[in-house]
Amino acid sequence: METASLPAPQEDEYKEQAWAKTSAEGKIEPIFIARPNVQENSVKFEMLYAGICHTDVHFGENILGSTSYPFVPGHELMGKVTEVGAKVTKVKVGDNVGVGCFIDACLECPRCKDGDEQYCDKGMTGTYGGDKKHGHVGGNQTTKTCGGYSGSNVVHEHFVCKIPDEIPAENAAPILCAGITMYDPLRHWGATAGKKMSIGIIGIGGLGTMGIKLAKALGHDVYAISTSASKEALAKEKGATHFVVSSNAESMTANAGKCDLILNTVSADHDLNTYMPLLAKSGTLVQMGLVTKPHPVNQLPLMFNRQKIAGSLIGGIAATQECLDLCAKHKIWPDCQVIEANQIDWAWEQLKTSNKDGLRFVIDVKKSLANDSFIAK
Amino acid sequence: METASLPAPQEDEYKEQAWAKTSAEGKIEPIFIARPNVQENSVKFEMLYAGICHTDVHFGENILGSTSYPFVPGHELMGKVTEVGAKVTKVKVGDNVGVGCFIDACLECPRCKDGDEQYCDKGMTGTYGGDKKHGHVGGNQTTKTCGGYSGSNVVHEHFVCKIPDEIPAENAAPILCAGITMYDPLRHWGATAGKKMSIGIIGIGGLGTMGIKLAKALGHDVYAISTSASKEALAKEKGATHFVVSSNAESMTANAGKCDLILNTVSADHDLNTYMPLLAKSGTLVQMGLVTKPHPVNQLPLMFNRQKIAGSLIGGIAATQECLDLCAKHKIWPDCQVIEANQIDWAWEQLKTSNKDGLRFVIDVKKSLANDSFIAK
Repeated sequence: METASLPAPQEDEYKEQAWAKTSAEGKIEPIFIARPNVQENSVKFEMLYAGICHTDVHFGENILGSTSYPFVPGHELMGKVTEVGAKVTKVKVGDNVGVGCFIDACLECPRCKDGDEQYCDKGMTGTYGGDKKHGHVGGNQTTKTCGGYSGSNVVHEHFVCKIPDEIPAENAAPILCAGITMYDPLRHWGATAGKKMSIGIIGIGGLGTMGIKLAKALGHDVYAISTSASKEALAKEKGATHFVVSSNAESMTANAGKCDLILNTVSADHDLNTYMPLLAKSGTLVQMGLVTKPHPVNQLPLMFNRQKIAGSLIGGIAATQECLDLCAKHKIWPDCQVIEANQIDWAWEQLKTSNKDGLRFVIDVKKSLANDSFIAK
Repeated sequence: METASLPAPQEDEYKEQAWAKTSAEGKIEPIFIARPNVQENSVKFEMLYAGICHTDVHFGENILGSTSYPFVPGHELMGKVTEVGAKVTKVKVGDNVGVGCFIDACLECPRCKDGDEQYCDKGMTGTYGGDKKHGHVGGNQTTKTCGGYSGSNVVHEHFVCKIPDEIPAENAAPILCAGITMYDPLRHWGATAGKKMSIGIIGIGGLGTMGIKLAKALGHDVYAISTSASKEALAKEKGATHFVVSSNAESMTANAGKCDLILNTVSADHDLNTYMPLLAKSGTLVQMGLVTKPHPVNQLPLMFNRQKIAGSLIGGIAATQECLDLCAKHKIWPDCQVIEANQIDWAWEQLKTSNKDGLRFVIDVKKSLANDSFIAK
């Protein structure tokens, strides 16, 4: 039986296997998608691993109301180059490469020129569900982009990063989202400037443990912050020097004003005023989860302490390469659990209920494609 | 008739005239206060002018619940040095000097060492209502500090700034609060780094017009932002290059995303989401009014634009001197209306109702002391 599918490939496209949600409520299904053929500046790679991010779940379940179906998730792509366009200089056939949350941007606005393509004034084109409006994505321009839960992809070389050999293939994919999501705010708020800081990481899941490792590798004191005392051993194993239980008044008092910078990975509704007392004067609290409920923010503590509440979203291409290189140098990478495509629904459920071990789930794409009972026909 | 008074001077103090509130509801009254005698590191100055700040009204009416009475307001002090301690090197007798919102801090914590004494980890000692806990304020250590609505003061030289000769005496006082309140966030968020920025100033009152002048003097494009279209001529006269009416949807749309930095001087309750659309990506909105009602803050726009909401409170001593020197160089200063002490109640009422001309009220202290009907006896 033919499963649900997107438009058939045009003549400048090829047909590829993928795994998709065909409705907000439905399960993940095998599907055929169309990918653009290689153009002069683009890179084709076979997918080896595709990471699973909590954001995939948010979009898959349409919590922002903007998802169109069929929807192919996945914005942590790791693969091996199989073909390059005539003008490509960044990578060559056989290289290990990675692609993160976006595959196009205008490359001309002040944000793009500053290397912050994720904040492109014209809007980045997401790796999935994105509009092909900037001209660097080939193929059918009327369709949305399809993500990494798939057999291959073709991406303009600007948006491709090189995966250093030191990083195991199965651990590389989540660096493209979980890693850069934590690295870019560290970089933006001074943690790569060489001065030792005290850095708080709220939420000891997939993002949080990666944040602990990166902040530690950069030489900082790391305060792991969790509602649950049971995360202490995990956080300290990953490199945290201090552990704060945010639901414990004594622990909060003992650590009041300690953190120059706090990265908050919590994506469930929460009260950020819980965490403000941990900030040092002149400190910044960076919110990075897709929280939709407004926060009540008190102005006087902000004023009397010159504190800042900020948001941050992934990172630009140059910063992503920096992050990959830092990971290679310090031999740090996300802790991953490798699964097959037929376990995606299960993995999403784990992310929704708890992620007690701080693991990122990664789909072994080649193994999944070899499973004849869960591919499109 | 003897009016309400604070404790009589100790032997290391002298008796001085001042004007005070003796209750939240009462009017300003003449009063005697005690000031510390000069110590080896302190500077005594006769008060020439004392500026009136909206914050005086807030504390005078006890809106934060922390005011103790009798309360002598005034944290914009301009005077002429009449005596210096043996170890003073910063100023000499006859110099014009200024003192702003605080007269002591620990001078040892990281904040103080960075020149941000206003964020002292142990808490700055306010020029009025402050506790003498750091040891640089002499006299009776059990009394609160008394502000600038007074005939003279004695302050440790660290907390005294020099008033350049180019600045008229009657316009200098408000620079110590209104000026530095606007200058320090400009300096902290990059506006003194030499790169041209687009800077929004919300509220075209005493703080706002000074902010416009400073941002313009630093070479930036200035967006004056007001709920009232009637402020346009005033804002442009002070140096604004653009004018935005925040209550007008068309004006807001036309200026969406224009400002790299917005300084919000509004001290009445307001919705800061009104102003967020004017911020450029990666921009910062700085709140600087004593607003007590929490703001509902939406996290997603912060994340998708790497925007920041911050607070800022006056500035440190080195920054204040920089601000005074910049004002002297560009011949810019607050627009002032000089009054006498018996007009303070009237001036406070003006600040509470409207401040349509962006004027700062300044008390002519010497003239006020010569008015025999409104001094303590």
